[in-house]
Amino acid sequence: MTVKACVFDVFGTVVDWRNSVARESAPFLARHGGSAIDPHAFATAWRKRYQPGMEECRSGRRPWTRLDVLHRENLELVLVDHGLDPKKIGEAELAEWNNAWRKLDPWPEAVAGLTRLKRNYIIAPLSNGNIALMTAMAKRAGIPWDAILGAEVAQAYKPQPEAYLRTAEVLMIRPDELCLVAAHNGDLAAARECGLKTAFVTRPNEHGPGQTGDLAPAQAWDWVGTDFQDLAGKMGC
Amino acid sequence: MTVKACVFDVFGTVVDWRNSVARESAPFLARHGGSAIDPHAFATAWRKRYQPGMEECRSGRRPWTRLDVLHRENLELVLVDHGLDPKKIGEAELAEWNNAWRKLDPWPEAVAGLTRLKRNYIIAPLSNGNIALMTAMAKRAGIPWDAILGAEVAQAYKPQPEAYLRTAEVLMIRPDELCLVAAHNGDLAAARECGLKTAFVTRPNEHGPGQTGDLAPAQAWDWVGTDFQDLAGKMGC
Repeated sequence: MTVKACVFDVFGTVVDWRNSVARESAPFLARHGGSAIDPHAFATAWRKRYQPGMEECRSGRRPWTRLDVLHRENLELVLVDHGLDPKKIGEAELAEWNNAWRKLDPWPEAVAGLTRLKRNYIIAPLSNGNIALMTAMAKRAGIPWDAILGAEVAQAYKPQPEAYLRTAEVLMIRPDELCLVAAHNGDLAAARECGLKTAFVTRPNEHGPGQTGDLAPAQAWDWVGTDFQDLAGKMGC
Repeated sequence: MTVKACVFDVFGTVVDWRNSVARESAPFLARHGGSAIDPHAFATAWRKRYQPGMEECRSGRRPWTRLDVLHRENLELVLVDHGLDPKKIGEAELAEWNNAWRKLDPWPEAVAGLTRLKRNYIIAPLSNGNIALMTAMAKRAGIPWDAILGAEVAQAYKPQPEAYLRTAEVLMIRPDELCLVAAHNGDLAAARECGLKTAFVTRPNEHGPGQTGDLAPAQAWDWVGTDFQDLAGKMGC
C-alpha cells in the first residue's frame, strides 16, 4: 500500500494568507479612508467570512461557486463592516484588491519542501480555491504543482467527502494511495474518514501571535512534520 | 487585447504518440505472439479508433468517459483486429500496455519551447486526454504545465465548443485572451469559431513518412511557427 500522490491544503498550509492579504490590503485601505484600520485585523475579518460563504454552497442553498467570487462578495461585506463604501471604491479597484488572494507568499521552506516531495509523488493542491486562483498563485510564487486539483475539479468544498474522493478518482488511484497534507486537524479528519492517508504540518503563526488552534496533531496522523522540509524527509524524499 | 494563457493540443502537437506507442507496444506484441505485427502499424490502428470512441460521448449516446478508459477498450478491439485474444493477455498486462499513452516522448524542442512560453503566459494542455493521463505524461517527460486543463475539466471533447469555452471560463479570462496551439487545422478552426486566438505549428512526421494532412496552415492563424521554439520567439518570449 503505497502513497502515489500528495495533495495539499493551501491557505495556511502552503501559503501565509494573513500577512500577505494584510500587505496587499494596506495601500487600498490607505487610499480609501481606512488608514486607521489595522491591515492584519482586516485580513482576519475577510478570512472569517470564508466558511460561511462556502457553507451556502455546501448546504445546497446555492450552486457551487468559485472562491474568487465568494472572496469578492466577502470583500464588500467586510468593507461595509469597517465603515467603507464599496461603491465609492469602484469596480476596477475592488477587482484588483480581490486579487490579493492570488498573491499569497509561501511559508519560507514550502517551495523547497514541495520540490523534494515532487521527486517521489504527484503533488497538487486540494484547496477550496478555484483553478484560476491556484494557478495564478503558483505562477507568481514558483510553486511546482504537477496539476491543479481541488474544489473546482471536484465541484465540492472541503470537508465534503466528494472533495477528497473525486480527487482520488480523477487521479485514478485509490483513496489510500492519496495523502492529504494540511496544517488543520479538521481537514485531515475529514480526509481520513474518506480513507485517505494524512500528514500534519505545524503552522503556528497562520493566525498571528496568540494562535490557539492546530498547534499539535489531534490524532495519530500517518505522518507529522514540523514543516515541509521535515515532512519530505519523513516521507522518504 | 492580450493573450494571457496558451493551451495546447497534446497528442501530435506536444508529443510524438506514434513512435512512442510503437516503442511501448513492441515488447508486448513480441511476448503475446504478435512479433509479425509492425508496431508502428499497430500504433496507427490504435489511434485510428480514437475519434470513434469519443464520438459516442460527443453524440450523447454515452456519458463523458475518460480517455484512459476509451484507450483501453480500443486496445482490446485492435488486438482482436490483429488476431490476438485480449483474454489470454490478462488484466495486468493490458493495464500496463494501456499506460503506453502516459509514456509519450515530447518532440525534441517542445519542452524548451514551452519553458520559454511559460515566462509570459499560463501554459496548460487543452487535450482530450484525462487529468491522470496528462499528469503522468508531464511528470515523466518534464513538461512544465502551470495547470492540467482539457476534456476532463470541461467535461467535453474537442472540437465541441464547450471544450474551448469552459477552459477560458475556468481560467476566468475571455476567449480572445486564450490561444490554442495545435498542429491540427481542424482543432484551430473549432477554437477560432469560439473566439480563441490560434497558433499553428507544423508536425510533418506525426503520422510517419508520407503524411499528407496538416502540412501547412489552412487559414491565416494568428501565429504560425515551425516548432515551439520558433513560436516562442514569435509570441515575444
